[in-house]
Amino acid sequence: MAIKRKRLSINEYVEGILQGNTVVLSRAITIIESSLDTDQFLAEEVLKQVLPNTGVSKRMGITGVPGVGKSTFIEAMGMYLVENGHKLAVLAVDPSSQRSRGSILGDKTRMEQLSHHPNAYIRPSATGSSLGGVANKTRETMLLCEAAGYEIIFIETVGVGQSEVAVKGMVDFFLLLMLAGAGDELQGIKKGIMEMADAIAITKADQDNIKASKKAKVEYQNALHLFPPTNTGWTPQVLTCSAITNEGLEDIWKMIEDYYQHIGNELESIRKHQSINWMHETIGYLLKQNFYNAPQVAEKIADFERKVGMGQITPQAAARELMDLAKQKNGDS
Amino acid sequence: MAIKRKRLSINEYVEGILQGNTVVLSRAITIIESSLDTDQFLAEEVLKQVLPNTGVSKRMGITGVPGVGKSTFIEAMGMYLVENGHKLAVLAVDPSSQRSRGSILGDKTRMEQLSHHPNAYIRPSATGSSLGGVANKTRETMLLCEAAGYEIIFIETVGVGQSEVAVKGMVDFFLLLMLAGAGDELQGIKKGIMEMADAIAITKADQDNIKASKKAKVEYQNALHLFPPTNTGWTPQVLTCSAITNEGLEDIWKMIEDYYQHIGNELESIRKHQSINWMHETIGYLLKQNFYNAPQVAEKIADFERKVGMGQITPQAAARELMDLAKQKNGDS
Repeated sequence: MAIKRKRLSINEYVEGILQGNTVVLSRAITIIESSLDTDQFLAEEVLKQVLPNTGVSKRMGITGVPGVGKSTFIEAMGMYLVENGHKLAVLAVDPSSQRSRGSILGDKTRMEQLSHHPNAYIRPSATGSSLGGVANKTRETMLLCEAAGYEIIFIETVGVGQSEVAVKGMVDFFLLLMLAGAGDELQGIKKGIMEMADAIAITKADQDNIKASKKAKVEYQNALHLFPPTNTGWTPQVLTCSAITNEGLEDIWKMIEDYYQHIGNELESIRKHQSINWMHETIGYLLKQNFYNAPQVAEKIADFERKVGMGQITPQAAARELMDLAKQKNGDS
Repeated sequence: MAIKRKRLSINEYVEGILQGNTVVLSRAITIIESSLDTDQFLAEEVLKQVLPNTGVSKRMGITGVPGVGKSTFIEAMGMYLVENGHKLAVLAVDPSSQRSRGSILGDKTRMEQLSHHPNAYIRPSATGSSLGGVANKTRETMLLCEAAGYEIIFIETVGVGQSEVAVKGMVDFFLLLMLAGAGDELQGIKKGIMEMADAIAITKADQDNIKASKKAKVEYQNALHLFPPTNTGWTPQVLTCSAITNEGLEDIWKMIEDYYQHIGNELESIRKHQSINWMHETIGYLLKQNFYNAPQVAEKIADFERKVGMGQITPQAAARELMDLAKQKNGDS
């Protein structure tokens, strides 16, 4: 968007969103993503007013390393859902530092069919230098999509970093995509992500790959049985699917519906805790941002990192000295 | 320690520690654990001076849920090491909120033989209400033990919370203890801990339990092969052991030596990164502590949590309002 459009009024945003007007929705997301103070005020007011209409969707995180067929899976799964009458929004958490990795949902061309379907809304991901900021924007965008009537939200991440932890904190269900033949493909997946998954879907289970996929399914199933169940008592499932034959897509959706059945009324309390945690995480993120952006800290931080790295000072002493530095200068000014 | 002893001079602490005097070491750890400002200054000076003599030990995290036989394992493994001429210090990370869970190394009676051996030093864990504070104290205690000549450090955690993440950030090798017959015992292990492990030791592999332990070993080995290797390219191992027959203890120690062989010169850069991360973590912890302890925040926080939980305000907006609150009052005073 090279041309900067005039902003709408708060009421126009709110009404447009609640009517499911995607043009207004997109413009509202743009103000959420804006760093202008006036836009932030506007975004906060709009969110406040649509808030009673949020919380009604199924919130799903989808992750997997480049090459696993994430866009293809989302396209196929998404088409299955919208053709069955569901309204689906697809978002992505994508800190710009990882953008070069190449598997990100950067535009709509990767999901051609889905992006043209009236029941689907695909939003290229917010950009930003810090994960905390990007994740907050994604979470707020999700709320707007809910208010606009999308009852299923997919949030895509790349499976190589901390984004998954952030997304885990805003979704109900976390789906990990894997390939059979767990050799090199696995190297990209960060440790810890597998234990976050509520389910693993083995993609590309078609043609010559069917046998290997079935074998991988059994292996992952055995592995996951050794792991503790999730907090809700759900045992992670392993399924196979193909975006070519569409086999397995229906089973995956049925499993997700089973999951919501399983958690039942607990969903409300899970989300309540997620929201409260999110508040505290955001506070931590803002505190750090303010701290590290202070000139007297920014000036010295590399020096302290060097000293700590060389073992000339303990990490604790360095932290205390930097805290003092930040405080003193504030007091002086 | 009901009677408050007089403090030594900085020099007396430093010299005593470097000579391996355990009485002085214990008194120095006491000042590290103290919350008095004068003690904190003293502790920082002592640490600064012994710092060049730290970093020489093998730092190992050991975790497992209550019932897995953690104390028994540490006693048996520890005896094996000290009888082979090693000097071993055993510490624990134990936020007091979890103390009631009962499996913590609270005193030395759990490791009777080891605690009486001249080559072993066992320190009951620091207490405190926040994990960040306790973890910092444990890390500083570890440095003092290193300076006092203990070339192996065991840091014990309970496997039920966030302590393992903190300990992972201060050790070289993370050993998870498990039992065969992975039914109920597993329920206590938090998700994510298994993926942190550099090795799993299946305890109580003796008598009627040998067959089940061997089976469990194979199962976990298969499971761990599906996981990505650690950052250092190390593939987590699974071994069995018995504190009754002492079988497997030697193999476990050989594996740990293999691990150090494997990482070689990288150890220095791993620890450098750990230290720098630790500095940033400590800053985050201190920032949050200052923020939440500010009266104007402490007064309102429950109110904001309630509103966020009820969906009356977004977590982001709540965070921003609380940040403003903290700032304004600071400016006023």
